[in-house]
Amino acid sequence: MTAVRTCEPAAASQENDRVPSIDAGRHPFYRFCRESLDGIREQGRYRRFTPLARQADRYPVYDHVTVPAAEPPVGREVVVWSANDYLGMGVEPAVAEAAIAAIREHGAGAGGTRNIAGTSPLHAALEAELADLHGKEAGLLFVSGYVSNQASLQTILTSMPGWICFSDRQNHASMIAGIKGARGATCVIYEHNDLADLEAKLAAAPKDAPKLVAFESVYSMDGDVSDIGATCALARKYGAITYLDEVHAVGLYGSQGGGVAERDGVADQVDIIEGTLAKGFGVHGGYVTGSAELIDYLRCAASGFIFTTALPPSVVAAALASVRMVRREGWRREKMFERVATFRAKLSAAGIPFMPTPSHIVPIPVGDADRCNEISRRLLADFGLYATPINYPTVPRGTERLRLTPGPHHTDEMMDEMVSALGVLLRINARHEDAAA
Amino acid sequence: MTAVRTCEPAAASQENDRVPSIDAGRHPFYRFCRESLDGIREQGRYRRFTPLARQADRYPVYDHVTVPAAEPPVGREVVVWSANDYLGMGVEPAVAEAAIAAIREHGAGAGGTRNIAGTSPLHAALEAELADLHGKEAGLLFVSGYVSNQASLQTILTSMPGWICFSDRQNHASMIAGIKGARGATCVIYEHNDLADLEAKLAAAPKDAPKLVAFESVYSMDGDVSDIGATCALARKYGAITYLDEVHAVGLYGSQGGGVAERDGVADQVDIIEGTLAKGFGVHGGYVTGSAELIDYLRCAASGFIFTTALPPSVVAAALASVRMVRREGWRREKMFERVATFRAKLSAAGIPFMPTPSHIVPIPVGDADRCNEISRRLLADFGLYATPINYPTVPRGTERLRLTPGPHHTDEMMDEMVSALGVLLRINARHEDAAA
Repeated sequence: MTAVRTCEPAAASQENDRVPSIDAGRHPFYRFCRESLDGIREQGRYRRFTPLARQADRYPVYDHVTVPAAEPPVGREVVVWSANDYLGMGVEPAVAEAAIAAIREHGAGAGGTRNIAGTSPLHAALEAELADLHGKEAGLLFVSGYVSNQASLQTILTSMPGWICFSDRQNHASMIAGIKGARGATCVIYEHNDLADLEAKLAAAPKDAPKLVAFESVYSMDGDVSDIGATCALARKYGAITYLDEVHAVGLYGSQGGGVAERDGVADQVDIIEGTLAKGFGVHGGYVTGSAELIDYLRCAASGFIFTTALPPSVVAAALASVRMVRREGWRREKMFERVATFRAKLSAAGIPFMPTPSHIVPIPVGDADRCNEISRRLLADFGLYATPINYPTVPRGTERLRLTPGPHHTDEMMDEMVSALGVLLRINARHEDAAA
Repeated sequence: MTAVRTCEPAAASQENDRVPSIDAGRHPFYRFCRESLDGIREQGRYRRFTPLARQADRYPVYDHVTVPAAEPPVGREVVVWSANDYLGMGVEPAVAEAAIAAIREHGAGAGGTRNIAGTSPLHAALEAELADLHGKEAGLLFVSGYVSNQASLQTILTSMPGWICFSDRQNHASMIAGIKGARGATCVIYEHNDLADLEAKLAAAPKDAPKLVAFESVYSMDGDVSDIGATCALARKYGAITYLDEVHAVGLYGSQGGGVAERDGVADQVDIIEGTLAKGFGVHGGYVTGSAELIDYLRCAASGFIFTTALPPSVVAAALASVRMVRREGWRREKMFERVATFRAKLSAAGIPFMPTPSHIVPIPVGDADRCNEISRRLLADFGLYATPINYPTVPRGTERLRLTPGPHHTDEMMDEMVSALGVLLRINARHEDAAA
């Protein structure tokens, strides 16, 4: 599938000579794409995006658009169980109104990079707010959480020669992209949440090399949680700085939504805390927080920060409203955890297996990509319920799952529907497997 | 400055033992940051972001916020000459209303990745619109133009072994990031817009290797324009696919704003056309367009696309409204070029030097970072005019400049003010240099 074919030059062409368009057969890359996609389809990994239009006034109800060509598009209501707007902050009227007011005042986009007329006072205010949330001196916005991880880690790990990055095996693709992108740095992967392994690897590394430990608080696919305090203590013992991804925790954990580090009272032990504005805060964009000089260095050196248009003022205004509301009001967090507990109790009562996690994430194991896709498809088609199938490469083969995220807007009735539907579909499927065995 | 200091382990720490917070002196990275920033300051390259609040109803007038702590913040009006919202589409009422309607209906954020409930029908509609704009089969949205370049080039150049990427020396940082990120691929840099050099390098490369030529249409700092048809003909002759960045051209060139490739009638000659929604279209986000299979492969393989929250529906709705309006209405493009010509005539009449370019960009050469910063500072302080100083590393040392982008909203009076101010500041400065010489 990955073999390179001989690359024939185009016949008889001259400069500026108009040769008919792209010939999809000519360059070997087109054949590579076709064959790769065939392979992905054969493995049941081909991804079809379900067209879902969130209905702000009925969250977590979305319109599943079945006839997009109609005007207006034709859809039907489905209850979404997989969104990452965990608290529904994106549909809070005050958040929406903040965005709308900013659009009316400043327009739809930023109009430039942060350095080229793209820094509104809103950007500075949100960076200060996020720094304060995490108890850090400074914050820096990026266009996404992915870019905040990739750009920050790559910039740090190429700053001095000889960096060694100790990276949890389950770290997110964006952290891996940043670490891999840092040519010259060495990456040492330690077993997931295994502090003995981390210590052994820290102890074995050259004492003089600059070291960084990169890890997450809540791992979003398994829903497990790291011991931040212990990880930071180990890092200090061996002279490493710490980089913590709180993407699936900000807004949800801690008395002000500062994440697991805030909940555990160890935010001051972490050098760099990274987060997102697109999940618990319900809007868009990513950020890092840390010491003033470290953040200032990233601001001046990170290519993925410098050479990109600033977030629109409306996104920043909405995020600022959301962060302030989340810090002030704890009831959404409390309600989310009550809803998660209620849902788990309902699953248990119905005998539906789920992976017990110390977080808000409820994975339902399925264990096979085709079966996982089929259960998701039937949930949507037969029951009007949406849960994304999570397959390889997002999770290892054999651990395919549905990943459910109950939130404050999921009612008891919605839960009963999901439990009942899962009961039908998992049992049907189990019977099929029995018959096949 | 980049020397690595010995990294002392923290004294007497045990796991979970609370050691007081971050000691900014402990890890050598903190010292590195401090020393790097000192160096950047000494070179006149330290970047201060000017807090500018765009006023949608008075574009290109912004509020320069001088007392951010006041409630509301205190500012004064300045005319911005450096924004990349070239046509002012971000302040078009219809674009703003599209964003506002989408916020009211769908909320402030997408709530998930494209695969996890984040694909609204708006995303699919915008991708189809952009593909149609460039005469391609398919399009794919990214959170920014930077990410669209970085993720697409890196994914393509790691797909098969042995890729050789021929990259114009002046290519944007985001393309360089994608090419550098493709481990295993070889990068051959050809001299800027030098097709003889490109041909020599293509001819010298192994015939069987998969090849890609990466270039831009409008180079944004010098404002020069590449010969797309000739570059594509050369690429075809040597069996290379072509990747064209039209970031500073989409919306502005071609009868529908499809970019220089549309204007020159050669869009069908290019394999992949990349663009942004944040400049000529005035909103936010980036995209690529190309053959259906190539785009589908990127959709399934590009980490920077897969593992990131989708653009908010409001951003997508605004961009869709903008692209449709820009395609339909050519008067903004015509007016922009008339304004550019008028401004150049006024500069010439006043004896102000500027770099003649075949594009809409008007660079005013200054040639020294400190002088460039000082002229920008005085334009703002003394004349209420904003033009970003462009210094190294964005441009080579010795070619520091102000980069002006006149648009349809710049009036004759605004131009006269800028010409008069530049006359004063460049002359004063020239006298200082004469005195020093």
